[in-house]
Amino acid sequence: MQFTAQQIAQYIGGRVDGNPSAAVSTFAKIEEATPGSLTFLANPKYTHYIYETQASIVLVADNFEPEQSVSATLIRVADPYSSLARLLELASTAMRPSLQGKEEPCHIAEDAVVPESCYVGAFAYIGRGVKLGENVKIYPQSYIGDGVEIGDDTTVYPGVKIYHNCRIGCRCVLHSGAVIGADGFGFAPDADGVYHKIEQIGIVEIEDDVEIGANTTIDRSTMGRTLISRGVKLDNLIQVAHNVEIGHDTVMASQVGIAGSTKIGSNCMFGGQVGISGHITIGDGTQIGAQSGLPKSVAAGSRIMGSPAMPMGEYARLCAYQKNLGELFARVRDLEKKLTEN
Amino acid sequence: MQFTAQQIAQYIGGRVDGNPSAAVSTFAKIEEATPGSLTFLANPKYTHYIYETQASIVLVADNFEPEQSVSATLIRVADPYSSLARLLELASTAMRPSLQGKEEPCHIAEDAVVPESCYVGAFAYIGRGVKLGENVKIYPQSYIGDGVEIGDDTTVYPGVKIYHNCRIGCRCVLHSGAVIGADGFGFAPDADGVYHKIEQIGIVEIEDDVEIGANTTIDRSTMGRTLISRGVKLDNLIQVAHNVEIGHDTVMASQVGIAGSTKIGSNCMFGGQVGISGHITIGDGTQIGAQSGLPKSVAAGSRIMGSPAMPMGEYARLCAYQKNLGELFARVRDLEKKLTEN
Amino acid sequence: MQFTAQQIAQYIGGRVDGNPSAAVSTFAKIEEATPGSLTFLANPKYTHYIYETQASIVLVADNFEPEQSVSATLIRVADPYSSLARLLELASTAMRPSLQGKEEPCHIAEDAVVPESCYVGAFAYIGRGVKLGENVKIYPQSYIGDGVEIGDDTTVYPGVKIYHNCRIGCRCVLHSGAVIGADGFGFAPDADGVYHKIEQIGIVEIEDDVEIGANTTIDRSTMGRTLISRGVKLDNLIQVAHNVEIGHDTVMASQVGIAGSTKIGSNCMFGGQVGISGHITIGDGTQIGAQSGLPKSVAAGSRIMGSPAMPMGEYARLCAYQKNLGELFARVRDLEKKLTEN
Repeated sequence: MQFTAQQIAQYIGGRVDGNPSAAVSTFAKIEEATPGSLTFLANPKYTHYIYETQASIVLVADNFEPEQSVSATLIRVADPYSSLARLLELASTAMRPSLQGKEEPCHIAEDAVVPESCYVGAFAYIGRGVKLGENVKIYPQSYIGDGVEIGDDTTVYPGVKIYHNCRIGCRCVLHSGAVIGADGFGFAPDADGVYHKIEQIGIVEIEDDVEIGANTTIDRSTMGRTLISRGVKLDNLIQVAHNVEIGHDTVMASQVGIAGSTKIGSNCMFGGQVGISGHITIGDGTQIGAQSGLPKSVAAGSRIMGSPAMPMGEYARLCAYQKNLGELFARVRDLEKKLTEN
Repeated sequence: MQFTAQQIAQYIGGRVDGNPSAAVSTFAKIEEATPGSLTFLANPKYTHYIYETQASIVLVADNFEPEQSVSATLIRVADPYSSLARLLELASTAMRPSLQGKEEPCHIAEDAVVPESCYVGAFAYIGRGVKLGENVKIYPQSYIGDGVEIGDDTTVYPGVKIYHNCRIGCRCVLHSGAVIGADGFGFAPDADGVYHKIEQIGIVEIEDDVEIGANTTIDRSTMGRTLISRGVKLDNLIQVAHNVEIGHDTVMASQVGIAGSTKIGSNCMFGGQVGISGHITIGDGTQIGAQSGLPKSVAAGSRIMGSPAMPMGEYARLCAYQKNLGELFARVRDLEKKLTEN
Repeated sequence: MQFTAQQIAQYIGGRVDGNPSAAVSTFAKIEEATPGSLTFLANPKYTHYIYETQASIVLVADNFEPEQSVSATLIRVADPYSSLARLLELASTAMRPSLQGKEEPCHIAEDAVVPESCYVGAFAYIGRGVKLGENVKIYPQSYIGDGVEIGDDTTVYPGVKIYHNCRIGCRCVLHSGAVIGADGFGFAPDADGVYHKIEQIGIVEIEDDVEIGANTTIDRSTMGRTLISRGVKLDNLIQVAHNVEIGHDTVMASQVGIAGSTKIGSNCMFGGQVGISGHITIGDGTQIGAQSGLPKSVAAGSRIMGSPAMPMGEYARLCAYQKNLGELFARVRDLEKKLTEN
């Protein structure tokens, strides 16, 4: 299916700069685009590509001023990335099969509530007392343990495992291999150094509009709940330990690890591979650079980096000092020499 | 079901301090507890909560001396966390369904040994020559490869994958998504830089009383075995490479990575995200702080931290020095200035 | 089955040094070998074991000169590890069952192309429009989404999940729990700090001869493709974000994380737990030490280490300086004192 620059501009509320009849049928990265494709320019790092791109249409910012000639037709919008998002959503909806009904064999416990509007894929397992909302999609080979509740319009991709009694909100997306509600890591050593399991009888509660990445693990609490608040987005391979609470609209890049009982505020941003100690508090709006390690609590609005983490400015200065350490040693040697000569 | 402080104190061998008829029917975290719930105080960080908790009963240490009035009934015990553990175990046993028998469809090879006392969930796969002990629980969608042996009372949660010929001991717990016995990462480059696979014909052997976290991976050895000794507890998302050996009663927090052929002693404790080089030896009782990186062997009883790791005291001093580096640069500048003026 | 030193030497083109009739029936690590087993010596760290090994045969380098007497029969070859690899391959082929045909129940969409030579295990799911090449092995409980194409002789171990439309080459090996083609982590925040999903309509393309470790995740691109080029070997628990491209014959140890849109060259080697920022370029042949963090692009042939990463020599010097920081502080204090006394 083809769309013209004019049609697209109208849909996203943009302004055509170039040929309004330029037509596209697909999307492409700016550096790989071929004729007939639409791309976008949002990251200034990629600006140089716009002068050589083969794309037929490029979404750009309202105030973009080309420094050379551009052969593509431009569509000017307030926020190219958001506009792209709207177009991708349109395309994605058109492409997505409308899944509904049950594929056999699947296992659905007799007392489970599975509305007609749901999809349950082959080899999926729905335990006793499970309650699914409307339009829930349970892909093949997923496991929904006894007593789990899942809200409307949530998608559970193939091979997700949700242990008993956990609660998942509406409009959530759980990617393949995510494990929700495995036992928290609780063991008490005896006098001989042998560890005895502390049973974990709590649950995981995931609120609405949460996305959980592939192979991410969120452990059930010892008692009470491990809480992932509404709007949280977790990337792949993240570890959330028992009793942790994460505030609304916080986002974390992949491979972050959060130790037990830590409370994380809302609207935080964590880079990849960050590690957070247990039993601490991270204030709202905290931003943490990749690979940082947090041994203790930080106040709301902190911007920190490093292991152990420190304010970003301090971290930048430390890196600069480290670069000049060799010189510092030389200067001290020099001073010592001079002082001896005196 | 309700229990009074007196009943509970009797069960765990504690002493009631307050109303012996105070009754509870559930557990809760101290900061979230509501009337009718039991909680505990073990970590001094949480002491301030005891003066405001709504819990009806709190387990505390024998020698706990409140500094303000406490409304809850206290039960004094030698070790509140252990006593809690005993109560949680009681509750957990009561809550847990007694799983037994086979859910269809499951795949059980003709020559597999699966005692009557076992549970095999739907869509589970039991390969040729598999031998399960008594009371083994194989949850849905788990894969037990050809020739695998599993000891009595072991639980394999949904979606665990155990490759051929691996051996799992008694009373082990393997959480969802754990992969036991995938090929070790062995490749030899030829003159053109093309890598050729080294077949991995060894196994993984897991001894008794081991717990393996969700999505943790333990690779089979090139030859011989990768060994996880009795009582080891591994958290989620841990990587154990081929030929590694881990001594008994060692515990590791999540996202630790251990490279090939390394030998780790018994009774070690590793913090989260620790990385261990290949072909080294970690002595018994070693404690390693979170995010540390070990490039070389360490002796028994080491307490280390940092990347590269160093003794904890040295690491603390390094952090302090780093904090004062800016000042040191200034002092050297000052000395240089003074010396020039002289 | 037994083989003599003479037979083995002939097969791998080696020279017997000792008893040509020495016979073996199994492989073993040099430090654990028992009579009747074959082992090898490639890593000099293990040389001392050769004087005490119980192995009947040891593969050694042509130029190996024992410093004490060795009781085992030696087979001298140009490259002991390569020769071992050939023998392991032989053994592995002999041991491996020849899987073919379908195990019921499995789900194969009506229009899927599944040649007779393929194996499809129980509870595997093959979606609409899937095309499998010859001799493809789909182990139990794997998920092959709609429109996926897989080339000849590729092995997909139990529980792998491949999302719709991704492409996998020939002779690839995908280990259990690997997730190929989950949504890239793309969200745009609105004025209220609420994140909205950017649909990810691209794919993952994996070329020929690639091995993907257990529980490794490779996300589909926003548009276009995330690319894993021929011969790449990825260890377990690695994260490859959307739009990333990895050049041919690059190898990465476990738990590496690569952020979105980064381009990695060919023939690179990454140590474990390395983190790579998004939107950067890593030149061909780059070697990166374990736990390093790369915030920016590096040229071809770089050898780097640390977080933030620096040239390996510089990193070694920094570690040395850090070790001596305490002494430097003392020396500066000393200078200050002397200068005051002057």
